[in-house]
Amino acid sequence: MGAFLEFRPLDEGSVIEYIKGVPALSSKLALGKNEEDITVKEVGDGNLNFVYIVSNNSVGYSFVIKQALPYIRCIGESWALTKERAYYESEALKEQGAITKGQHVPQVYHYDHTMSLIAMRYLEPPHIILRKGLIAGIEYPLLAHHMAHFMAHTLFFTSLLFRSTTHHKRHVAKFCGNAAMCRHTEQVVFSDPYQISQYNHWTSPYLDHDAEVLRHDNLLKLEVADLKSKFCERAQALIHGDLHTSSVMVTHDSTQVIDPEFAFYGPMGFDIGAFLGNLILAYFSQDGHVDQLNDRKSYKEWILKTIEDTWNLFYNKFIALWDEHKDGAGEAYLSAIYDNPELQLLVQKRYMTDLFHDSLGFGAAKMIRRIVGVAHVEDFESITDAVKRANCERRALDFAKTLLKDRKKFEGITEIVSAIQEF
Amino acid sequence: MGAFLEFRPLDEGSVIEYIKGVPALSSKLALGKNEEDITVKEVGDGNLNFVYIVSNNSVGYSFVIKQALPYIRCIGESWALTKERAYYESEALKEQGAITKGQHVPQVYHYDHTMSLIAMRYLEPPHIILRKGLIAGIEYPLLAHHMAHFMAHTLFFTSLLFRSTTHHKRHVAKFCGNAAMCRHTEQVVFSDPYQISQYNHWTSPYLDHDAEVLRHDNLLKLEVADLKSKFCERAQALIHGDLHTSSVMVTHDSTQVIDPEFAFYGPMGFDIGAFLGNLILAYFSQDGHVDQLNDRKSYKEWILKTIEDTWNLFYNKFIALWDEHKDGAGEAYLSAIYDNPELQLLVQKRYMTDLFHDSLGFGAAKMIRRIVGVAHVEDFESITDAVKRANCERRALDFAKTLLKDRKKFEGITEIVSAIQEF
Ligand SMILES: Nc1ncnc2c1ncn2[C@@H]1O[C@H](COP(=O)(O)OP(=O)(O)O)[C@@H](O)[C@H]1O
Ligand SMILES: Nc1ncnc2c1ncn2[C@@H]1O[C@H](COP(=O)(O)OP(=O)(O)O)[C@@H](O)[C@H]1O
Ligand SMILES: [Mg+2]
Ligand SMILES: [Mg+2]
Ligand SMILES: [Mg+2]
Ligand SMILES: [Mg+2]
Ligand SMILES: [Mg+2]
Repeated sequence: MGAFLEFRPLDEGSVIEYIKGVPALSSKLALGKNEEDITVKEVGDGNLNFVYIVSNNSVGYSFVIKQALPYIRCIGESWALTKERAYYESEALKEQGAITKGQHVPQVYHYDHTMSLIAMRYLEPPHIILRKGLIAGIEYPLLAHHMAHFMAHTLFFTSLLFRSTTHHKRHVAKFCGNAAMCRHTEQVVFSDPYQISQYNHWTSPYLDHDAEVLRHDNLLKLEVADLKSKFCERAQALIHGDLHTSSVMVTHDSTQVIDPEFAFYGPMGFDIGAFLGNLILAYFSQDGHVDQLNDRKSYKEWILKTIEDTWNLFYNKFIALWDEHKDGAGEAYLSAIYDNPELQLLVQKRYMTDLFHDSLGFGAAKMIRRIVGVAHVEDFESITDAVKRANCERRALDFAKTLLKDRKKFEGITEIVSAIQEF
Repeated sequence: MGAFLEFRPLDEGSVIEYIKGVPALSSKLALGKNEEDITVKEVGDGNLNFVYIVSNNSVGYSFVIKQALPYIRCIGESWALTKERAYYESEALKEQGAITKGQHVPQVYHYDHTMSLIAMRYLEPPHIILRKGLIAGIEYPLLAHHMAHFMAHTLFFTSLLFRSTTHHKRHVAKFCGNAAMCRHTEQVVFSDPYQISQYNHWTSPYLDHDAEVLRHDNLLKLEVADLKSKFCERAQALIHGDLHTSSVMVTHDSTQVIDPEFAFYGPMGFDIGAFLGNLILAYFSQDGHVDQLNDRKSYKEWILKTIEDTWNLFYNKFIALWDEHKDGAGEAYLSAIYDNPELQLLVQKRYMTDLFHDSLGFGAAKMIRRIVGVAHVEDFESITDAVKRANCERRALDFAKTLLKDRKKFEGITEIVSAIQEF
């Protein structure tokens, strides 16, 4: 018996059959000895793919099998999406894993191109999806530090601050193959929220007017076009491409980034903005989660502090990597030209300011699409009272619009935190 | 006898042997009947490659054979450069030819990958290299119109204003293969002029101080870094990549763009800037060509008018293409979102202003590198009096520095023309 020769969607039953044909996996699982101890559980609560936890309960060992089907899971076969995305996800996982020395990315055990399937480390309990932790009001003291580390390292080491253009262009070309996933983002982030689209929805009727105003906001659409063109044209670094708070699994001391199936060479700010924007969404959703036991006041402060710390730590780590590698092969700032302290400060300030503004713009766009677009976030969806939910969403939406339009007026992250507090 | 099975550098003798093995070419030339009527002449006055004019004098028919060798012709084998560039040149010639309906690009008759060789239409006399015409003081009444047409069409139709991102990313990936040529540009345009480099030279000793000041101009180097990052990262359109006045052949009524071996998906402003920047170089060189018969005053006015017309005609043609295709497949501004006259004006104004500033920046960078970098221009080199030459070059250099640093302060091309006149 060998691996499957043709693509076949798996289910909980056929997963074991599949594993039997893949020695690397069946031996990992000690399969063959006590087959009755093996359990398979489908846990994919994500939007796109199927995720199976495969466990040998007698030895207490598990791994995860993730399979891409040629459509979007939460919509169904009517919204086709290439299963080739699994290839880019596995390549990105490997690259990000290598860059972060396995600290913040689950290890890939096996990739099967025919089956569009990745086997990877199981992020065992108490790992949970960060978004769920944020809804539950749990503080993660290392989150900002870890995410800053993940982003600073993955973005720096795949950019021209570190790489030669030869190396860079080879990788850019490879990830151009993930164009279908980019097109999905172009549509759901940069287009659909600003036009009538069958998949759009919002807390109706409360936000009907807001959604309509958005579609007629010329200044906003002018800025969205700039962001979209950056997304489509600027190959700045290998970005995760979907770095919201459901792509992060956490415990008190571990932070793991999963699900980089949208990875490609794009603008760094798209990742940073995705993460920060989703924290801002979490912030604005907190009032909907207040109950008699918890007024969420101090938790809201913690979220704001995490936003601030993430950017500041990212900034410092990124600059430290830059300083450390300034005499390396990075094509962007050759040391013979830029190696004087005053100039180095000048170029770093310019670079980081541009990146900050990009991050704010992309973050805002990601917030907007979660309120009036196709895919919403549990932070708001779990607020059962529709009026309450709409009020939280409207504040987030209005803040995002301001952020997107005025992003270049903000000089630092403390100004953002103040703006959120005063909003 | 067949085509050559291995790469071999041709010379005037072996060109005929080569053609004999390629039926498409030998029949075109009516070779075989009167072999004694065939002449081969090497005319490559360019920097990089060998160009042969092959003629059958009895039938009055000629074509051109261009061959890339694995090094830079004007430097020698010490500066290696991949001969794969011939592939990208032939692909770009075909694409630009198709887009401009053969009006402004010589037709490709034959491409031989093994031999890194292109056979193309011979641009017969009175076609001359535009730069030589500019040095001779010849006016070309249709030049601005033709170049605006070439640039508007080739840039618009290969951008996301016209194309889907699927189509775009496929082409971007292909031209990533021309990375070696991009690296050459990165070095000679964006790096070498700002550092000590063995190949740099200038009119010494007169410009020694100017060259040194340049290497220590922090604000200039800050801006150059921005331009370089755009050049390396932004896949806006298929650009020619080397669109100076020696890549254009002209007669009174014909304008032909040759030599796109540097083609790749990059920022549009790099092409527009190359052309305009070289016209500005031509302008500043005119005082060195004054003699008793010609004070060059009216010719300088004609150059300025050509600069102004080129941009204005480009602007109008580009916008006309945009309006014409606004309901097409272009991903950048979907008509459902941007189809209202006020917003359309707003986005076009923003797009064209950004493109204008990019063009000024790249144009200025291209001017600078022609004065203190490795490859100079005949406009200045043909001024035999070194003091005179240095004075012309210094004015051009100083103007370029201002243009590069202050490019975003200029709102339109008339301001540029005034700035040149007042300089
Ligand atoms: N390596 C893993 N360890 C544990 N759980 C995982 C792992 N990968 C995915 N999951 C679970 O499966 C869910 C969906 O996975 P994800 O990669 O986000 O798929 P999708 O692309 O469909 O969003 C996650 O929210 C998480 O609960
Ligand atoms: N199609 C052509 N018809 C006539 N002359 C040509 C043609 N192509 C090139 N030449 C001549 O050969 C010279 C070098 O060609 P070019 O393509 O610019 O080579 P390089 O890449 O070495 O600069 C041109 O300056 C021109 O004089
Ligand atoms: Mg997911
Ligand atoms: Mg996913
Ligand atoms: Mg460096
Ligand atoms: Mg040439
Ligand atoms: Mg050339």
